[in-house]
Amino acid sequence: MIEVELKGYADEKIFERVREKYKLLRREYHEDTYFQHPCRDFSKTDEALRIRVKRFNGHFEAFMTYKGPKLDRESKTRKEIEVELTDPDKYAEILERLGFVEVLTITKVREKYYVEKGVVIALDEVENIGKFIEIETLVEDQEKIEEAVEHLRAILEELGVKHFERRSYLELLMERSKNGDS
Amino acid sequence: MIEVELKGYADEKIFERVREKYKLLRREYHEDTYFQHPCRDFSKTDEALRIRVKRFNGHFEAFMTYKGPKLDRESKTRKEIEVELTDPDKYAEILERLGFVEVLTITKVREKYYVEKGVVIALDEVENIGKFIEIETLVEDQEKIEEAVEHLRAILEELGVKHFERRSYLELLMERSKNGDS
Repeated sequence: MIEVELKGYADEKIFERVREKYKLLRREYHEDTYFQHPCRDFSKTDEALRIRVKRFNGHFEAFMTYKGPKLDRESKTRKEIEVELTDPDKYAEILERLGFVEVLTITKVREKYYVEKGVVIALDEVENIGKFIEIETLVEDQEKIEEAVEHLRAILEELGVKHFERRSYLELLMERSKNGDS
Repeated sequence: MIEVELKGYADEKIFERVREKYKLLRREYHEDTYFQHPCRDFSKTDEALRIRVKRFNGHFEAFMTYKGPKLDRESKTRKEIEVELTDPDKYAEILERLGFVEVLTITKVREKYYVEKGVVIALDEVENIGKFIEIETLVEDQEKIEEAVEHLRAILEELGVKHFERRSYLELLMERSKNGDS
């Protein structure tokens, strides 16, 4: 399965429209730590390795996710492999021993809404960068990506989204700190 | 905690002595897959990264283990970090995407025996290399290693072990295939 994802800049009005229109699935708190590869420049290969610690309704979950390069020109669609971690600190220690370096940690509050079968919207309030809206679905193969992207784009545009963003929060934060405006 | 481990060559007589003298904890079947680092030569840095799939009494468990360089001159003592894996195939896929390369898989039958509080003996029948006996304990800090090694050595010698081996099964198998006698 391929995750098709589209992200746009949001504001309080767009957040309110989603909250009125769709059903809240849950509110999560994310702490995402990104790692740099020991001998490959992920910013050039367009890959990422992340450990996410997720808290919601008193639960605690942790995942490690490998994200491959983007697969099309418009959306954020990538090959993702995700595994659950029983003890994220120990995994981080193994990664560090193997030469992976912690780049930065991004924290955000994410509200997830059910749009329709297989389609979910996330309202993200990301520390130091602001409000974003993400819409996501899964497709079986590469040929279905384009159609899915158009469908997701239409939903976001109807909600008032004007500016889309293909860069990840990691990339946005990295560029900020490069430009000295963090 | 530091794992102090000593390994010796064994034969059927030594196996029988252990079976008579100590209590069998369990019999396990191991499938160990070793990975090479994308840009570091583990055979030179004396490190290892392994995924072990373990089967016993109808159970199935999987672990990823990072092994640091040996810490003393005599035993196999190393810093180890081990995490449980919920889905070993997916972990292997992430490792491969990150450039880690499967080196080889070693299978063995391991019988574990209780020797005394904190001390365990393993009888290993390793595919393609033969019978070995391993004895293991944990110590709190580096200063305690030497004393522990002497104690473990005395137990193995009493069982008839004459030749000790610091090299891992991986190293033994790699040397075999290098010498063309596999």
